Amino acid sequence: MRLFHAEDLHDVAVGAAVLGTGGGGDPYIGKLMAMQAIRQNGPVRVIDVEELDDGATVAPAAMMGAPTVMVEKLPNGTEIVTAFRSLQEYIGRPIDAVLCGEAGGLNSTVPFIVAAEMGLPLIDGDGMGRAFPELQMVTFTMHGIRATPMVMADDKGNSVLLHTVDNRWTERLARSATVEMGGASLIAFYAMDGATAKRAAVRGTVTLAADLGRTIRESRAAHRSPIEDVRQRLDGHRLFAAKVMDVDRRTVGGFARGEAILEGVDDDAGRSFRVQFQNEFLAAMEGDRVLVSTPDLIALLDADTGEPITTESLRFGFRVVGLGIPCDPKWRSPDGLALVGPRYFGYDIDYRPVEDRAAEPAGVEGRAQ
Amino acid sequence: MRLFHAEDLHDVAVGAAVLGTGGGGDPYIGKLMAMQAIRQNGPVRVIDVEELDDGATVAPAAMMGAPTVMVEKLPNGTEIVTAFRSLQEYIGRPIDAVLCGEAGGLNSTVPFIVAAEMGLPLIDGDGMGRAFPELQMVTFTMHGIRATPMVMADDKGNSVLLHTVDNRWTERLARSATVEMGGASLIAFYAMDGATAKRAAVRGTVTLAADLGRTIRESRAAHRSPIEDVRQRLDGHRLFAAKVMDVDRRTVGGFARGEAILEGVDDDAGRSFRVQFQNEFLAAMEGDRVLVSTPDLIALLDADTGEPITTESLRFGFRVVGLGIPCDPKWRSPDGLALVGPRYFGYDIDYRPVEDRAAEPAGVEGRAQ
Repeated sequence: MRLFHAEDLHDVAVGAAVLGTGGGGDPYIGKLMAMQAIRQNGPVRVIDVEELDDGATVAPAAMMGAPTVMVEKLPNGTEIVTAFRSLQEYIGRPIDAVLCGEAGGLNSTVPFIVAAEMGLPLIDGDGMGRAFPELQMVTFTMHGIRATPMVMADDKGNSVLLHTVDNRWTERLARSATVEMGGASLIAFYAMDGATAKRAAVRGTVTLAADLGRTIRESRAAHRSPIEDVRQRLDGHRLFAAKVMDVDRRTVGGFARGEAILEGVDDDAGRSFRVQFQNEFLAAMEGDRVLVSTPDLIALLDADTGEPITTESLRFGFRVVGLGIPCDPKWRSPDGLALVGPRYFGYDIDYRPVEDRAAEPAGVEGRAQ
Repeated sequence: MRLFHAEDLHDVAVGAAVLGTGGGGDPYIGKLMAMQAIRQNGPVRVIDVEELDDGATVAPAAMMGAPTVMVEKLPNGTEIVTAFRSLQEYIGRPIDAVLCGEAGGLNSTVPFIVAAEMGLPLIDGDGMGRAFPELQMVTFTMHGIRATPMVMADDKGNSVLLHTVDNRWTERLARSATVEMGGASLIAFYAMDGATAKRAAVRGTVTLAADLGRTIRESRAAHRSPIEDVRQRLDGHRLFAAKVMDVDRRTVGGFARGEAILEGVDDDAGRSFRVQFQNEFLAAMEGDRVLVSTPDLIALLDADTGEPITTESLRFGFRVVGLGIPCDPKWRSPDGLALVGPRYFGYDIDYRPVEDRAAEPAGVEGRAQ
């Protein structure tokens, strides 16, 4: 068990935004909301999943929606507690611990709000080890856990309880309700017992996020290279140093979709890159060559500060360093790739681990779409 | 109390389709489903709302969706019972009687299915005295009754429970879920007590529908004019005898919207008419002159058989007689007109009762949009 105080939330939000691979919400907004909840209610106990009783009840909490909307619709902090309490009421037993749905600047901090306001411990883990755009894309789905009963709440006071035949249907119905609610909603879902959480969760995500955030902060203070320190901490691969030339971004079907065009700088001068996204960065390419694809992580870090850049804040002129980072091993299984591999997102490429791609010379690769 | 047997459902469905003013679903499909439920479970007791205890619990049942989709997605009869049972479970007390949400070929019969399968009485009334396209458009809304908690179920096994801040939000969220569910859903909503049902319901709708259906059938058998008999029974006004020249129909946003162009025949030869609809017929015009507008009813009856024609079955070449029929007096109040008057639907005209419009010579009217 480790206590997280309000001032710890900066590191969590920044570090989780690295893992958020462009998505998962804005770390600044997330940090502010969680800090306020902790100041009002006291520090949050972050526990290892092994500390849970097998029979305990656990549920993740998150914000759902296009990040482009989530930065404009600041949740007031009561919706997520409403959603969580309604889920608890509906399943008819108290929820004993909160879990992160996904790592991300906002979605790492939303569970802190619930934990603080309800006096519950937060499990050091999540359902992705990163962020993904659709709600069935969690290790929980691979372990046969149903997303429903799921409760969604909006800032106006509306709530929706879903019961679906599978987690893809949960995504469909929840996405359309989220769009109708103005593009963002607060959700509580995937209620499970402690034994299941031990099997299904990606472990250590919260403390890893805190560690990454601290690394960036301390490395910068010590005039070291925060990007290189992050890369080492995550066994990552440096993809490029580049300047953002253009960002094509549309909010469609409840997602922020688009592509960033980058032009290499420094050692990478003369090269050009593309990074495609659907809320999260999904693939980084140089011409036809795939540098990294989902489910491996793509982090774009500010070349000067090392701070992670989200898809919705990416703009012309930004100088970034791209890192490719191995995903949790669960995602590299056939079941994992069926849920979140490149073909699910419409890319006509086979998944190959970022470390394999990085080890190969240019020209050997298959073609990207 | 009056017992309705399977063979009574033909008259109910046909008569309710007259009141359905083009919407409310197909009478043939509705009839078949309800007849099957009654054959399996025995006749349905139709009771006057005054027979209810004030403390009894009542809930309406209906199918939601664009009629164009509802004719293709035949409900299997279990979804509506699922929705009804879930609502009962959610509110935590047994529902004592079923109510029609709206009059319509299908939506007059859906409550018979619930009543038959659950062994409940059906109240002789509904929430409109006709059909309207949106679910807040019920006399219940005027009486301050919340549509939620509302349960929606689809043919795949998904269900959604809504809690909303007002009935317009219920419509928004339920409509988008219905679209996602494939364009149609089965719903249970507006749970209320007996005292409230006595105040808020439009009375006598089921027996009126049965009466209208019988009138059409017997009048035809006796070689009388079924249309004239229907007109007299409803204090209606003959608008025109015409042939359908063109129907522009699109299913957008979960609704069947469009316009029919008609050319007068017989006594009306040389005149031309338009009837606009959103699931239901909303306005009938001759050039700029409004003949009838919502909330008064527009019924298009087959010129030969007197059978009502729904918006989704309207086709080139059909010969019809149009009737304008006074709506329930509740709709003519300021609150009623705010909910369902012509301006709500985007028409730049003031509502005037069909009997006033019918009494005026052409040329006196304001202009239609």
